[in-house]
Amino acid sequence: MPDFDTDLPSEIDRVLTDFLRRAGDPIRQVEPTFGPAVDALSDFVLGGGKRLRPTFAWWGWRGAGGDPRSAEAEGVLRAVASLELIQACALIHDDVIDSSDSRRGSPTVHVAFAEHHAQRRWLGSPEAFGQAAAVLIGDLALAWAEDMFAESGLAPTTLAGARPAWRAMRTEVLAGQYLDVHTQATGDASAEAALRVDRLKTAAYTVQRPLHLGAALAGAAPELIDALLDFGGDLGVAFQLRDDLLGVFGDPSVTGKPAGDDLREGKRTLLLALGLTYAEEQGRDGERKVIADAVGDHRLTGAEVDDVRAALVDVGAVAEVERRIEELTGTALASLRRAALAEPAEARLTELADRATRRTS
Amino acid sequence: MPDFDTDLPSEIDRVLTDFLRRAGDPIRQVEPTFGPAVDALSDFVLGGGKRLRPTFAWWGWRGAGGDPRSAEAEGVLRAVASLELIQACALIHDDVIDSSDSRRGSPTVHVAFAEHHAQRRWLGSPEAFGQAAAVLIGDLALAWAEDMFAESGLAPTTLAGARPAWRAMRTEVLAGQYLDVHTQATGDASAEAALRVDRLKTAAYTVQRPLHLGAALAGAAPELIDALLDFGGDLGVAFQLRDDLLGVFGDPSVTGKPAGDDLREGKRTLLLALGLTYAEEQGRDGERKVIADAVGDHRLTGAEVDDVRAALVDVGAVAEVERRIEELTGTALASLRRAALAEPAEARLTELADRATRRTS
Repeated sequence: MPDFDTDLPSEIDRVLTDFLRRAGDPIRQVEPTFGPAVDALSDFVLGGGKRLRPTFAWWGWRGAGGDPRSAEAEGVLRAVASLELIQACALIHDDVIDSSDSRRGSPTVHVAFAEHHAQRRWLGSPEAFGQAAAVLIGDLALAWAEDMFAESGLAPTTLAGARPAWRAMRTEVLAGQYLDVHTQATGDASAEAALRVDRLKTAAYTVQRPLHLGAALAGAAPELIDALLDFGGDLGVAFQLRDDLLGVFGDPSVTGKPAGDDLREGKRTLLLALGLTYAEEQGRDGERKVIADAVGDHRLTGAEVDDVRAALVDVGAVAEVERRIEELTGTALASLRRAALAEPAEARLTELADRATRRTS
Repeated sequence: MPDFDTDLPSEIDRVLTDFLRRAGDPIRQVEPTFGPAVDALSDFVLGGGKRLRPTFAWWGWRGAGGDPRSAEAEGVLRAVASLELIQACALIHDDVIDSSDSRRGSPTVHVAFAEHHAQRRWLGSPEAFGQAAAVLIGDLALAWAEDMFAESGLAPTTLAGARPAWRAMRTEVLAGQYLDVHTQATGDASAEAALRVDRLKTAAYTVQRPLHLGAALAGAAPELIDALLDFGGDLGVAFQLRDDLLGVFGDPSVTGKPAGDDLREGKRTLLLALGLTYAEEQGRDGERKVIADAVGDHRLTGAEVDDVRAALVDVGAVAEVERRIEELTGTALASLRRAALAEPAEARLTELADRATRRTS
């Protein structure tokens, strides 16, 4: 008998592998041409990712009293693993929106399909073909997420209880992505705008709603769900702030991304917003200019990234972001204790919070 | 008490309006910036469309014994109306994929958001912003389709019985769209390729699965569902072949589309495939060249469209497509009679079949 608590990532991979085969086989038979699209989605989902959302959802369920030795544990595992398919849609479409070339060290889906087209010297634009394929494969991921969730084998009343979380999560992540695109377009460099994106796109989608979903699958009381939402909101923002610091200061050999890539992509983060505000308040025009000019400069050199790092440290933005991470982690853990979860969920979520806010990659 | 059978389109609009408000209000409060995206989706869904898919689904339910005066009729109406949200996703993403400028006489979603960006002189490319917004709004439509279906108020066991139809429909339309893009890219001009796209993208998605869904919601027996799938498959292809004829021969004042637009867009249809094959078999090089050169020529003039029309008539392609529409409609109606549906469903579906295959717009 599998030990779900211990082997969670590999158990999630097992049910995803199984679902993708069952969902893919009928349509491959009906229309073999669609095979490469199904393969691309399977490779994307099974090829990486930290399984963060299913993990939070699983511990939300366990903490609200879900029993891993019960008959429904396998169904819960399938229901929470479906979050990886929503994430696949979000990332594949995000890469189209940002025109990103690579993800997890491989070509993004739209780039891979453009190359497929170019190699075969097909008609029309390879880029347009790649984009079309990626839009449709992202849609497929979203449709299949619903299928995996709804057909997880859980009792209809159990699933119905989790629908408010499921519903909110999908709308919130789309609103967060739209807000992100909108904020880039308007050039809103305020700390407030950065925090709103963090609250929707990371906190709600990655931590709060998965915990909510898991707890609701265990039939949790509203007070417990409220405490988990508080925990998840603060932890999720702290998680994103750590991510922002790593995007500028992370070691490329550990993060797997070139140093300063967040700067080149023009990502609007709280770190940069504070850097600009503090530089201005302190009358440090040089530092302000170094930071402002770097954001969105695709040809930023390594030496220029170093200058931005120095400026962000000097004006005190890094220290302030570290302080907020510390503070948010503290309030998050206080909410977690208030939730009074069944062990080992509290210990495991404390460990996850620690890893998420202190990590180096 | 509303008479669902008679006022079906306006009843569908009523439940869509209600759903879009209930789904939109919470997220507008959380993030007002997302408001224009929600508005765009609402306007798109409520702004037009023939409600074809919900109509087939409704009559599938009625034909399998569903009672419009029963307590569950309102839930069925909501469940079948959700098909309009899937269709919104399909069309909004299709317009991105095809870079189409207008739909139903209005700018497409990506064009409208690009204009919104340009008018405000925001940062970056208006086109990229428009495309990002349209990808996310299409995703929202797909997520909300699922919410509307799952939260229609029908009993969980009723919904569970309809999931095979629901599941197949969403995967099949995406496979059909992918096949369409793929066929354009490979330049496969065969009649066989055109028919495969028709079977998946139109027949399965527009007629077969909606009928299947409705009948399954009424708990129909497998034999009845099989007969409806046969009816829908043949009718759906006949419907698409009529559409193909109208795309070349339709009166712009009736269809609302410029004459010959399907030719300019390079749509690969059975009509064109037969035109090319027949011209070649008959050694009519002139006709073959007229047809081949027109496909995908964005600057095709009205006089050139006339030449293509004449060529398609002369080689016999038009007569053959008309013959197939006739034949498919005949086999479709035979399958419908085999289904032995409860009246007035048989009469209404016969009427729909007649309208779909003889229509002028």
